[in-house]
Amino acid sequence: SVSAVLPAGGSGERLGGATPKQFCAVQGRPLVSYAVRAMERISWISDIVVVVSPENVETMKTIIEKYGHKRVTVVEGGITRHRSIFNGLKVFAENEFSSHLLRKPEVVIIHDAVRPFVEEDIASKVVMAAKEHGAAGAIRPLVSTVIASAADGCLDHSLERARYRASEMPQAFLFDIIYEAYQQSTDYDLDYGTECLHLALKYCKTNAKLVEGTADLWKVTYKRDLYAAESIIKDNLSQEVYVITNVRETLAQVGFLLSESLKSQIKVEAISGSLSKSDSHLQNIISGQCYNFVCVNDKRCAIQETQELVDMLEKSNIPLLYPVVLILVHLDISENNSFSIGMEDLTTIKKFARETKKKNILVYGLLIQYK
Amino acid sequence: SVSAVLPAGGSGERLGGATPKQFCAVQGRPLVSYAVRAMERISWISDIVVVVSPENVETMKTIIEKYGHKRVTVVEGGITRHRSIFNGLKVFAENEFSSHLLRKPEVVIIHDAVRPFVEEDIASKVVMAAKEHGAAGAIRPLVSTVIASAADGCLDHSLERARYRASEMPQAFLFDIIYEAYQQSTDYDLDYGTECLHLALKYCKTNAKLVEGTADLWKVTYKRDLYAAESIIKDNLSQEVYVITNVRETLAQVGFLLSESLKSQIKVEAISGSLSKSDSHLQNIISGQCYNFVCVNDKRCAIQETQELVDMLEKSNIPLLYPVVLILVHLDISENNSFSIGMEDLTTIKKFARETKKKNILVYGLLIQYK
Repeated sequence: SVSAVLPAGGSGERLGGATPKQFCAVQGRPLVSYAVRAMERISWISDIVVVVSPENVETMKTIIEKYGHKRVTVVEGGITRHRSIFNGLKVFAENEFSSHLLRKPEVVIIHDAVRPFVEEDIASKVVMAAKEHGAAGAIRPLVSTVIASAADGCLDHSLERARYRASEMPQAFLFDIIYEAYQQSTDYDLDYGTECLHLALKYCKTNAKLVEGTADLWKVTYKRDLYAAESIIKDNLSQEVYVITNVRETLAQVGFLLSESLKSQIKVEAISGSLSKSDSHLQNIISGQCYNFVCVNDKRCAIQETQELVDMLEKSNIPLLYPVVLILVHLDISENNSFSIGMEDLTTIKKFARETKKKNILVYGLLIQYK
Repeated sequence: SVSAVLPAGGSGERLGGATPKQFCAVQGRPLVSYAVRAMERISWISDIVVVVSPENVETMKTIIEKYGHKRVTVVEGGITRHRSIFNGLKVFAENEFSSHLLRKPEVVIIHDAVRPFVEEDIASKVVMAAKEHGAAGAIRPLVSTVIASAADGCLDHSLERARYRASEMPQAFLFDIIYEAYQQSTDYDLDYGTECLHLALKYCKTNAKLVEGTADLWKVTYKRDLYAAESIIKDNLSQEVYVITNVRETLAQVGFLLSESLKSQIKVEAISGSLSKSDSHLQNIISGQCYNFVCVNDKRCAIQETQELVDMLEKSNIPLLYPVVLILVHLDISENNSFSIGMEDLTTIKKFARETKKKNILVYGLLIQYK
């Protein structure tokens, strides 16, 4: 089994300003919540331990409740990054550090609260590598040349950029290895070190496997990084759409054509099948926080089915943050040319849209004559 | 004397997308134009040499014309960063490489086209240090731990973060030293190296002085950096205002009070003195691209004076890009309580505002009764 520890105890000195960066709002939501969600979306991660400084325990618990995070345990951190991670690991191993001991995982992922964009793919790669090598971590090419300075503040030498890498997160370890390494660590390690891979090497002779990560693994360090995170999140919100069609042939075909022509503009996910609360695929999509849906239908008035989708969305708490856009496409495949939706149906849809708007769900109707 | 070389020949592979990042639009303006402007605003830099790949020479010349850049020479680059910088330096030293040889400077600054936010202060520091040490460069603390990988893709060792720094730009050199270093460089250096400080050390035994830079020296490398640059530029646009008052006592006092109360919100620069085309301070401000002005006046209708400011702004080409906001504050210090601006004056101001709006200058009027 795999669990995760997210140190979120930093004070954010480099950012300037009073709020530690992991609690800074990005599109109205604290940064740490994005990192937690990224972990949470990975179904094979059992427990997520978030380590925060004592004064932020209540804040973190409020965030977990507000954004409906699951499988999360909040733990009090220490005064340094390493001490915080160590505290997070103890919850899996030592009864006295938690009221409810979590099950000790085979592999533990260590990730940062200030890296909001980790994907399942890279998490999976580091976990697999950790199983084989005992330890593994994501790396990225260096952006700047790294230099060593002499005591007089002058250049001593510069490193050959190609031979070095930036060590990023996530990292993963066989639990017993990293826990052993922390237990062996000296106070100096715990107070001045920052690199988990280094502890595994130093105390357990484990040479971590290095895994090339994607560019989105970067860490929010400065104010400009918050700006960047905000823009990326906005982009993601508007660039993904789910097309839902029912199984009947004509509709499926239209859904397919629609998906194909939308694909050049935005990311499209097509779902064939009628809406139903028991549809686990749809449930997954909603918990993945999609904000745009196109429902293709040929019924005269598909309010009832749409209501089920609205119910699911409401229950997911997603529309709390950003408006969800729901486009109802009514496909008229009848032979006659007259509009197949009368005034009465229009009134019903309008009334429905007015109601859902109060819930931050924007419903639009579209009528397509299709032969 | 001091001149500058800006390599702008990169292909922007890490960014993804076809446009090299230095030519990507940030708030409607190519990134390279911000870096050129940053250099141009430093009055003691004589010449600015921008080195671009042969296919972008015309693009660069168009940018220089469109944004009114001065003291800029465009030079064709080579296939690597070092070869491009070398080409830029040759313009100061070898007649055959330019139709008009530029005067050889004592010190040359090397900066990047993709670092838009360099301030005079850091440029001045590296130049002073270069005069003393022969070479100098801005550095920043490392954001991530740097690690060395072994041949098998596993961790070899991690560097102690505190002992190393990221080498950033600007850098500065005694011209003779860096030019000598480039002349001595091997093809291998020119093809695979990237660090100018390294060449100065290797070929001229010059240990560059390292100067702690500010966080805004960072380099636009990834798409997220473009997002960040855009947000920072937007922020800067809206967070600076110039308050212009004339010298009479009451007005100066109001101007002062206004500045003081605005200061908690935004950056305020107060100018006392009437508007005049010959005012070099005001000219400097306008070329520094300020977009917000408050003019405090007690004349019945200060259109004529305002017209002079509008003329100056128009001539500066600044309103081409973003709207300039001009707030005319009419201060009524007369004893009687009636409004001192009649319908006729109002009509004149409205008409004036309509005209300036066409030039992207938004004029607002404000009447304050003051006793």
